[in-house]
Amino acid sequence: MVYLDYNATTPLEPEVLDAIHHALAEAWGNPSSSYEEGQKAKTIIAQARSHLAKMIGANPSDIVFTSGGTEGNNMILQTGLRYYENWRKSLTEAGDGDNMNHLPHFITSNMEHDSIKHVLEHFQETGQAEVTFIPASTKTGRVSVESVVEAIKPNTCMITIMSANNETGVIQPLDKISANVRLMKRGPRESKILMHTDAAQTLGKIPVDVFDLDVDYLTIVGHKFYGPRIGAVYVRDLGSGTLPLYPIFFGGGQERNFRSGTENTGMIAGLGKAAEIVCHNCRSHEIAMRNVRAYLEEKLKVTFGDSVVFNGKLEGSERIPNTCNVSFLGEGLEGYKILAKCQVLQASIGAACHAQNRPSPILLAIGVPVHIARNALRLSVGRYTTMSDIDRVVADLKQAVEHLQSP
Amino acid sequence: MVYLDYNATTPLEPEVLDAIHHALAEAWGNPSSSYEEGQKAKTIIAQARSHLAKMIGANPSDIVFTSGGTEGNNMILQTGLRYYENWRKSLTEAGDGDNMNHLPHFITSNMEHDSIKHVLEHFQETGQAEVTFIPASTKTGRVSVESVVEAIKPNTCMITIMSANNETGVIQPLDKISANVRLMKRGPRESKILMHTDAAQTLGKIPVDVFDLDVDYLTIVGHKFYGPRIGAVYVRDLGSGTLPLYPIFFGGGQERNFRSGTENTGMIAGLGKAAEIVCHNCRSHEIAMRNVRAYLEEKLKVTFGDSVVFNGKLEGSERIPNTCNVSFLGEGLEGYKILAKCQVLQASIGAACHAQNRPSPILLAIGVPVHIARNALRLSVGRYTTMSDIDRVVADLKQAVEHLQSP
Ligand SMILES: Cc1ncc(COP(=O)(O)O)c(C=O)c1O
Ligand SMILES: Cc1ncc(COP(=O)(O)O)c(C=O)c1O
Repeated sequence: MVYLDYNATTPLEPEVLDAIHHALAEAWGNPSSSYEEGQKAKTIIAQARSHLAKMIGANPSDIVFTSGGTEGNNMILQTGLRYYENWRKSLTEAGDGDNMNHLPHFITSNMEHDSIKHVLEHFQETGQAEVTFIPASTKTGRVSVESVVEAIKPNTCMITIMSANNETGVIQPLDKISANVRLMKRGPRESKILMHTDAAQTLGKIPVDVFDLDVDYLTIVGHKFYGPRIGAVYVRDLGSGTLPLYPIFFGGGQERNFRSGTENTGMIAGLGKAAEIVCHNCRSHEIAMRNVRAYLEEKLKVTFGDSVVFNGKLEGSERIPNTCNVSFLGEGLEGYKILAKCQVLQASIGAACHAQNRPSPILLAIGVPVHIARNALRLSVGRYTTMSDIDRVVADLKQAVEHLQSP
Repeated sequence: MVYLDYNATTPLEPEVLDAIHHALAEAWGNPSSSYEEGQKAKTIIAQARSHLAKMIGANPSDIVFTSGGTEGNNMILQTGLRYYENWRKSLTEAGDGDNMNHLPHFITSNMEHDSIKHVLEHFQETGQAEVTFIPASTKTGRVSVESVVEAIKPNTCMITIMSANNETGVIQPLDKISANVRLMKRGPRESKILMHTDAAQTLGKIPVDVFDLDVDYLTIVGHKFYGPRIGAVYVRDLGSGTLPLYPIFFGGGQERNFRSGTENTGMIAGLGKAAEIVCHNCRSHEIAMRNVRAYLEEKLKVTFGDSVVFNGKLEGSERIPNTCNVSFLGEGLEGYKILAKCQVLQASIGAACHAQNRPSPILLAIGVPVHIARNALRLSVGRYTTMSDIDRVVADLKQAVEHLQSP
C-alpha cells in the first residue's frame, strides 16, 4: 500500500516514538512534584518547549501545550471573545463605552478547518459574535489582502486565517494581511485586532516564523509533522502579558495557569522531538516533497492528459510542497469511487473528518465547479514518499479509472 | 529511592507502555479515514472504550475520551450549567418560568480537587452559578448524606462529590447520597439533579461501579491507575440521549460530536489496557496495597509511638487501601522539612499542584488543627510497594525526624 494522506495525519518519526517511550518509562513522575521523579519530567517539558519555540522563531515562554489543534483553535477563538468583552468593559468603566454595544467581530476565510469554522458558527448561532467569512478567490485559492482589510469594522477583534489550506495546499498571504492590518489606524474606541493563524498544514513543510508571518497567535498540531496527537498554542510575548490567553480549563494551574491538567509528559517529549527534527530538516524535507509532488503531477498529466485537472494549482499562488488536489474528469469518476477501486493507494477526497462520498465543501467554497469537485482526490505526499511509490499509485489510479469507465 | 506518591501519579504498567507503543507505531492512521490505516486505529479505540466501560460497569457508548481528568471535570460541570439553562428555557417557553429566574445551584464538598473547586469558584465569581461547599465532618472525613440533602434547593442542578479524597483517602458515601437524592420529590418547576463523582482516586484501588454508586456522570483519570495522561467521562445512557453532555470543543465532530479533535489513538490504547488490567486484578491489587499500608501504619506507630497521628483514619470511615496521611507531632517537623531531609522517600504533603511548604488546604478544610496539618505527609503506596520498601521508608523518616529534632 502507498499512503498519500499525510495532510490527514502522519506516522511518527522513529526518534519521536523513542522520545515518547523514554519519557513515559523514565519520566512518569508528576512534573509538579519536587522530588527527582517529578523534576525529570519538568526538565523534559522545558526542553520540548524550547524546541517548539525554536521551530517557529518564538520564545519558550510564548508556548502553551494543548491536547491538540482543536483545543488550540477553540482556546484562541474564545480568547478573542473574552478579549473584546474585557476591552469593552474597560471602556464602559472609563465612561466611554455608551454606543459601543457591539458584538465582537471575527474575520476568517471560508475554507478553514472545522475547528475554526464550527467554533465561529457556534459564536454566531448563540449570539456571541459577528463573523465575516471571506471567500477565497477562485483565481488564486487565497483570501485577498484587500477583502480582509475591507471587512474590518470598528468591532473587529480577531482575524483568523489558516497558513495553508489542508485540501488545496494553497498558502495564504498572512504576512501581507498582518502588515496591512497593523498599518490601519484604529479609533480610540476600537479594539486592537488580534491576528491568528492555524499553522497545522505548514509546519514541517515550509519554514514558519511568527515574526515573518507577523501573527499574535498560532496553532501547532503535532500529528501533521510526524509528531504525536497533541499540540500547542503560540501567543506573542505571553510571558510579558501584553496579549491575553484565557484558559478554558480551571484546575491545578499547570502551564502557568493557562492550561490546567497534569502535563502529558510523554506526548510533550514526542512533540518536542518532532519540532527538533523540523528545525534541522525542514528545508530538505521541503525539497524532497516538492520533487515527489512534481513527479506525481507530471506523471498524472502524462498518463491522463487533459482528463486531469489540478485544483489549487493556480497562477501566482504558492502551495505547500506536498499537496496535490486532482480531479479526474468524466462520468462516474467521483473521488470516492476511484478510491474504492484502488488497490495500492490510501488517500482521501478531503479532510478526514468530512463525509467521503460528497464533494468537498472546501473545494466548492473556493469555487471549483461541482462536477470537478465531486471527482477530486487529495493526494498528499510525505517526507519519505519515493518516485517508485508514485509510479505504483499512478498505475493504480489508471486501473481504477479504466475499471470505472469500462461498461 | 522509594516512591510513595501514587496518588499524585503512577508509573505505567509495562503492558500499558507496550499497548501505547504498538498503537503509535502500527495504528497511526487517522481513525476517521476509511482505508485500512484508519480502520486499524478505529478498532483499537473501540476496544479501549469497551475495557473502560467494563471497568465501571457501563456501556461502551456511555464513554467519551478526554485529554484528562481536568478536562472531564470541566466538561461535566459546564454541562450542569447548560443543562439548567436549557431546562429553564423550556419552562419559559411553556409559559411557566416567570419566577424561576434563579442561577443554577451546585452542591459539592470542601475537599474537591482543584479541577472541580476552581471551576465552581469561577462560576460563582462570574455570576453563572450558586455553589454550596459542604464541609466534610471532622469526625468522619466525609460529607454527610444529611448535609447534602439539606443543601438541596429548587434550583439545584448538580451534585458533585469525589469518590475518595486524594489526601486522606476517605471514601465518600456516594451511593447513599444518590439514593437519598433520587427519593426526593422535585416540584414541576424544579429541574432534575444530576449526580457526578470524580473517581480519580478510587479507580484501580477499589471496585467502582456506576450502578452501585448510582451516579449519572463519572470522571476517569488514566494516570492514577497506571495508565497514560488522558481520561474519559462516563455519562449514563449517553447513547440514548437521556442525559446531556455539552461539548467544550467544536471541530471535526469526533467522539459522536461530544469531543472534537483527532483521537489520540496511542494514549487511548494505553488507557484501555490500564482499564483491562484493573478489570482483572483490582481485588488482588487492593489486598496487596491494604496489607502494605497496614504494615506502614503499624511500623510508624511502633517507631514513633504517640508522636504520629493518622489523618483520615477515622472511626466508621473507610479509606482507599493505599493512602496513609500521617503527621509527626513536634516543633520544626513541618511536612516539607521532613521530606527535604529524607534520602529514600519520595512523597508529598498533599496534592502535587499545591504549594508544598504550607499546610494542606484540604486537611485544614476537613478540620485538622493547623499544627497537625502543617506536619503532615501524604504517603500513598502502589501495587508493587513491598514491606521492605516500607522498612526503608520508616528508617528514612526516623533519621529525618531525628535530624530535625537534634539541636
Ligand atoms: C488545518 C487544520 N487545523 C486544525 C486541525 C485539527 O487538529 P486535531 O484534529 O488534531 O485537533 C487539522 C487536522 O485535523 C487541520 O488540518
Ligand atoms: C481527585 C482528582 N481529580 C482530578 C484530578 C485531575 O487529573 P489531571 O490533573 O490529570 O487532569 C486529580 C489528579 O491530579 C485528582 O487527584
